[in-house]
Amino acid sequence: MGNNIKELLEELKNLSELMLDLAYSAVFFENKEIAKEVLLLYERLEDIEEDLYMHLFAVGKKMSPRLISVIELVETSKDVALAAKNIAEMVIDGKSLHPVIKQALSEADESIVMVKVRKSSILSNRTLGDVKLRSNTGIDVIAIRRDKRWIFDPQKNTRIKPGDVLICIGTVESCQKAKKIASGKLKEI
Amino acid sequence: MGNNIKELLEELKNLSELMLDLAYSAVFFENKEIAKEVLLLYERLEDIEEDLYMHLFAVGKKMSPRLISVIELVETSKDVALAAKNIAEMVIDGKSLHPVIKQALSEADESIVMVKVRKSSILSNRTLGDVKLRSNTGIDVIAIRRDKRWIFDPQKNTRIKPGDVLICIGTVESCQKAKKIASGKLKEI
Repeated sequence: MGNNIKELLEELKNLSELMLDLAYSAVFFENKEIAKEVLLLYERLEDIEEDLYMHLFAVGKKMSPRLISVIELVETSKDVALAAKNIAEMVIDGKSLHPVIKQALSEADESIVMVKVRKSSILSNRTLGDVKLRSNTGIDVIAIRRDKRWIFDPQKNTRIKPGDVLICIGTVESCQKAKKIASGKLKEI
Repeated sequence: MGNNIKELLEELKNLSELMLDLAYSAVFFENKEIAKEVLLLYERLEDIEEDLYMHLFAVGKKMSPRLISVIELVETSKDVALAAKNIAEMVIDGKSLHPVIKQALSEADESIVMVKVRKSSILSNRTLGDVKLRSNTGIDVIAIRRDKRWIFDPQKNTRIKPGDVLICIGTVESCQKAKKIASGKLKEI
């Protein structure tokens, strides 16, 4: 079975977990923009799922028990993604949230933020390693959206481009810093 | 609405995420012991859910839109937990796993391990801060099971007791080290 299936399966898992993090974050900040991102990710996940099944059944038309295990893993990611989608839709629909929810979610010592990198940002056209973002600011870039494509778990040699949307986690303070750095307001890190 | 509901909601979310991590880990290592832990956690989750609903409906018998948002969040945790339970059951049933699954899951740079602290371990009756586990070994203790109770996100002043089961994440090497330290084989960290 091809390398493709491995990669697609991996991306499904990553996508679903990112969706869940973002969905909770959308609830916490009552942020419709983040919630909409979750729905976009869901569309992407459905594409990958279709792609994966096409690969699976191109390999062999016979259903084997081992193939079932792959399908079960796909379904797991799908279930997690659906759960994320549900709460994202709650935010988009503007449903009134009980204050206890915000309290329950606030206990996390990590915050999550989506920032768009402007041309004037010191991050533009530099690698994550160049700017030493993590060691200098405590900000962890867990994913990058570039147009319709996603880069998961970016590495030190990943070059950030203007227009990239970075999904960052860190403390509340470092997330605020991330916003300023990406927007170009803060020129030093 | 009481503090209890906040705490129960928080624990539900933590539990469901831990279950998912453990379930993937159970698949990766084809480890039935970890998979069984996932099922135990599911029972705990159901208890918390029941407790939470009892608190919710003790407050007011009238269903409000804000109350619905709490229920939706509970359902989210439940969906994630169910997804985890499904793959854990796949492991327990000894279903043959397609090798591509292991490949897809191996990309994570983090490994997860459950270790039981023996009396002779240097961890016994010391706090996480005392032993500086994280800075000395790179091992991150994300949860502790003590009898039937769970401690999530343990802090520096959390004291480890003999018999505690630690859920550790770290590199494959540091996870192996964690096993030796907890068993008492390794007396230095």
